[in-house]
Amino acid sequence: MTFGIASKGVYAIAATPFLKDGTIDFNSVDSLTDFYQDSGCTGITILGIMGEAPKLEPEESRAIIKRVVSRARIPVIVGVSAPGFAGMTSLARSAMDMGAAGVMIAPTPALRTDEQIIAYFAGAVEAIGVDVPWVLQDYPLTLNVVISAAVIAKIIANHPSCLMLKHEDWPGLEKISKLRALQNAGELRPFSILCGNGGMFLDFEPERGADGAMTGYGFPDMLTELVSLFAQGKRDEAHDLFDLHLPLIRYEQQLGIGLAVRKHVLMRRGAIACDAQRKPGQMLSATAKAEVDYLLSRIARHDSRAAFR
Amino acid sequence: MTFGIASKGVYAIAATPFLKDGTIDFNSVDSLTDFYQDSGCTGITILGIMGEAPKLEPEESRAIIKRVVSRARIPVIVGVSAPGFAGMTSLARSAMDMGAAGVMIAPTPALRTDEQIIAYFAGAVEAIGVDVPWVLQDYPLTLNVVISAAVIAKIIANHPSCLMLKHEDWPGLEKISKLRALQNAGELRPFSILCGNGGMFLDFEPERGADGAMTGYGFPDMLTELVSLFAQGKRDEAHDLFDLHLPLIRYEQQLGIGLAVRKHVLMRRGAIACDAQRKPGQMLSATAKAEVDYLLSRIARHDSRAAFR
Amino acid sequence: MTFGIASKGVYAIAATPFLKDGTIDFNSVDSLTDFYQDSGCTGITILGIMGEAPKLEPEESRAIIKRVVSRARIPVIVGVSAPGFAGMTSLARSAMDMGAAGVMIAPTPALRTDEQIIAYFAGAVEAIGVDVPWVLQDYPLTLNVVISAAVIAKIIANHPSCLMLKHEDWPGLEKISKLRALQNAGELRPFSILCGNGGMFLDFEPERGADGAMTGYGFPDMLTELVSLFAQGKRDEAHDLFDLHLPLIRYEQQLGIGLAVRKHVLMRRGAIACDAQRKPGQMLSATAKAEVDYLLSRIARHDSRAAFR
Amino acid sequence: MTFGIASKGVYAIAATPFLKDGTIDFNSVDSLTDFYQDSGCTGITILGIMGEAPKLEPEESRAIIKRVVSRARIPVIVGVSAPGFAGMTSLARSAMDMGAAGVMIAPTPALRTDEQIIAYFAGAVEAIGVDVPWVLQDYPLTLNVVISAAVIAKIIANHPSCLMLKHEDWPGLEKISKLRALQNAGELRPFSILCGNGGMFLDFEPERGADGAMTGYGFPDMLTELVSLFAQGKRDEAHDLFDLHLPLIRYEQQLGIGLAVRKHVLMRRGAIACDAQRKPGQMLSATAKAEVDYLLSRIARHDSRAAFR
Repeated sequence: MTFGIASKGVYAIAATPFLKDGTIDFNSVDSLTDFYQDSGCTGITILGIMGEAPKLEPEESRAIIKRVVSRARIPVIVGVSAPGFAGMTSLARSAMDMGAAGVMIAPTPALRTDEQIIAYFAGAVEAIGVDVPWVLQDYPLTLNVVISAAVIAKIIANHPSCLMLKHEDWPGLEKISKLRALQNAGELRPFSILCGNGGMFLDFEPERGADGAMTGYGFPDMLTELVSLFAQGKRDEAHDLFDLHLPLIRYEQQLGIGLAVRKHVLMRRGAIACDAQRKPGQMLSATAKAEVDYLLSRIARHDSRAAFR
Repeated sequence: MTFGIASKGVYAIAATPFLKDGTIDFNSVDSLTDFYQDSGCTGITILGIMGEAPKLEPEESRAIIKRVVSRARIPVIVGVSAPGFAGMTSLARSAMDMGAAGVMIAPTPALRTDEQIIAYFAGAVEAIGVDVPWVLQDYPLTLNVVISAAVIAKIIANHPSCLMLKHEDWPGLEKISKLRALQNAGELRPFSILCGNGGMFLDFEPERGADGAMTGYGFPDMLTELVSLFAQGKRDEAHDLFDLHLPLIRYEQQLGIGLAVRKHVLMRRGAIACDAQRKPGQMLSATAKAEVDYLLSRIARHDSRAAFR
Repeated sequence: MTFGIASKGVYAIAATPFLKDGTIDFNSVDSLTDFYQDSGCTGITILGIMGEAPKLEPEESRAIIKRVVSRARIPVIVGVSAPGFAGMTSLARSAMDMGAAGVMIAPTPALRTDEQIIAYFAGAVEAIGVDVPWVLQDYPLTLNVVISAAVIAKIIANHPSCLMLKHEDWPGLEKISKLRALQNAGELRPFSILCGNGGMFLDFEPERGADGAMTGYGFPDMLTELVSLFAQGKRDEAHDLFDLHLPLIRYEQQLGIGLAVRKHVLMRRGAIACDAQRKPGQMLSATAKAEVDYLLSRIARHDSRAAFR
Repeated sequence: MTFGIASKGVYAIAATPFLKDGTIDFNSVDSLTDFYQDSGCTGITILGIMGEAPKLEPEESRAIIKRVVSRARIPVIVGVSAPGFAGMTSLARSAMDMGAAGVMIAPTPALRTDEQIIAYFAGAVEAIGVDVPWVLQDYPLTLNVVISAAVIAKIIANHPSCLMLKHEDWPGLEKISKLRALQNAGELRPFSILCGNGGMFLDFEPERGADGAMTGYGFPDMLTELVSLFAQGKRDEAHDLFDLHLPLIRYEQQLGIGLAVRKHVLMRRGAIACDAQRKPGQMLSATAKAEVDYLLSRIARHDSRAAFR
């Protein structure tokens, strides 16, 4: 691939590990990077919304980029969404200079009409440079910006440097079908679609045309296996695996406390040392932790990855 | 005009008068209709958002339409926005049968993308019938649907029965300019633009290309005079008149309590007997009433219409 | 129970069956009522948001109430949410006169602060009458009104006629725990909590303190079995049953097209004759229908209720 | 005053001057600081939303604080709102170390219930330190967080370091009255209320209990004169002055393009060298500039401050 962004498989949306006192836990940054890599991920996305990026100072963001890029042997994409193009450009250039494979840009929440959205990404691409490969993040549930398939197609057509869609519209299956239909009709060049939303619809998204997942579910190894099963045409086996994990996927996909669940699972699995979040953040109650552990134990009956250490 | 909707001047957005017990005050419906007419309005719009239409039962809506249409000697437009097209169609047909000049349709609040908005109005027009003249209401501040100039142009192009835009985007001056520029470029057929938002920018909207106002400010006679001054090219005089009323226009243009201010002014001017609203509704405090009365007294120094009776 | 609202079990949120032409399919109203009853439901809730209530004319709403109440041998709750208290009162009185067990009221979307929410329900209760038993619907995802546990407690304390909470906050498990903790501390009188959100968290809600479910999932017979398993303390069996259905529960819980999925399932199960919705509404694509059918076939391997007829 | 925040008068919300290339124009930072001071302002607020703070890098923010604090002979308040408390604390400490009189904190947009809002400010105060004087910004129109008078009272009661309310709720006159009534009833300690929203209701806010204004209207000298007239009990003169400026105040108070109007006026008045904004930003059309200039010329007939240089 020209720009070095792998087009298929699973990109892990990386959590940012903190110590109890809120400082960055760089040892866990390393172990988490290894964990994603060992899980068969084709790439890692850092500094996304779930990575608590808005709570980091710019120098911290740069330190994390440096650490992950220097350790990973797979492409790293860096979230650079920012209120101003100056800050976005500055972070994007730092990231590319340090060896990132590309950046990810989400629309700013105030955008509403098609032309506003199209103009925003034109401005962003002009700002970061037309040579920087980037991923378009489509996440209406949190960002409150709804991007139609036609607008996504327009953005992809306008910007050759847009290589991938992080698709997390909800509901969103029809949008994937529409985009692939445009492509099949010769109206849209090839581009990659990786799905987010915690994997909640990953039992159908590959058949709709998705190339894989970009999400932070605590079992990236299960995600890579799932995508592989679909690639092999093993539909029923894929659903069996998906259904086994769905209760936890669903539990993790709760706005606000989802990140707490995810960090709890990653800690239980040994990928990070501590499940702390920077404030303000929502923590799990003891009951919620017990519920997650119960779900893990149920998964563990059929999938040893979920067994307690 | 083919459909009987006047294309210029002032359409009063009619308040719905209630008695203290919440029943409709039909005597005040009559006196208010006369008041609007005697104020030089070219039309009356009833059952809009400010007319408390959502708080009326369908049979009440029909009774009000009948009363106003039978009394008015100017065109009457009826707000028919509804969650379902069945209810919208039923009300639109009743209104046209009773002699309304047309209907007004606002987008349903869930709409977000350009294609959703365009599809919604296509469905609405199919439902009410392509022969029913209608006004497109563009009111993002309350409805939370943002319609770009390009989308308005598309809707007008798609539907010959769309004769008028009730423009109350905010800020909205550039949108008027864009629409008229499309028309001047031959890309859009003629249509009428009447401005809402309580008249807050009526000192510039006519020069941008608006044909007048469609709003419920308590001094429709001032609005008609203002639009007439602009038509005569008397810019400074128009601004003098506008500036005199702006403190009250601004006070009335407060979300939530604006209707209470408006009904208070209409009652003080003798146009309605009672300023009651149907519940739930926000009433004016004694301090607020005193503030409105003070603003009226200031206007009255130069405009006898504001003098207390 | 004094007011005749059962406090435990499953209330089915009833779909409103339409014929292809959009008219109400009263034969299916009957068969659907029977279906819910035969599924072991302890009650039926009609004219809710998922019942397309806003798309009905008042006389249609009354006809449906009459039909369901006269046929059902279990309590019927009627959704009476309306923009104005006059319309709400009129519908509530009709419902109670026809034999409904109570009404359900959701907050109007404009409410934001605690005191606004508390004042709104005080106004509603004053309007419909303090003797009318009612259910408080807490549904932030769609209504955009967030009600804290403390505010729910206050409303319950203020209004003895509030007998039940339809809980569909998301995430919402902690809210149930908080409310029950207030009760256990003697600070809140007993009241019923039935959970909505399509049943997405019904594998944990009973243990948190919920009395059952009030939702419209296409397998109310599974919901009643699930609630019963929890009542018997059969935790693992309950989770086995829940996990079997979760892929479909999740698929049905998509904003916008969820109702289409639900009607498709109810039609496949023979509970209604036609899956038509009133316009504007979102329909299922052929691919989506095939996906639902595939999920049904997977459930059917272990639960004969999902087998195709 | 213990903390050095003046409690009355006018705080100018400072624009951040940029050169055409988007870099900070420090010479204009100086001239603007002088301009505010010479206008009789009792203080200056920097790095607020209108100051394009979110578009600055942290080191730029610190450079601006340093420049303004070292030049101003009046108290400087620094906006420190941030997605995470770590960034907020870091900026607040820098600001206080450099000599700021206090900081200003707005609620994060996700907050909805009273208890969430109260908890957020408790967390913020704990983070920045209980000894740092701060201003509570109440700005629902942009931040989408509605704070009731009771919640403001609670926050003020909880935190002795909260010295001032920047009041820009809309409509908001009754909220001022409520807060002052609580104080008069002995239920709330003294605190300062300065009003924002561009000054749109500054003709009534002082009589409701406000101590002045904190806003960025291009004529801070008019704002200080207005507040002074009210302090002298010269009601009619105050209204005469307010009404003269209201057409421009209103024009400047347009979401999105308001900042462009403000910078245009400040440039015309010689307070800054260039009206550039950082991207993405909305610029004025030639027509809009002509409209602003026309409004200035109308004001200039009675107020020489508005005369063109």
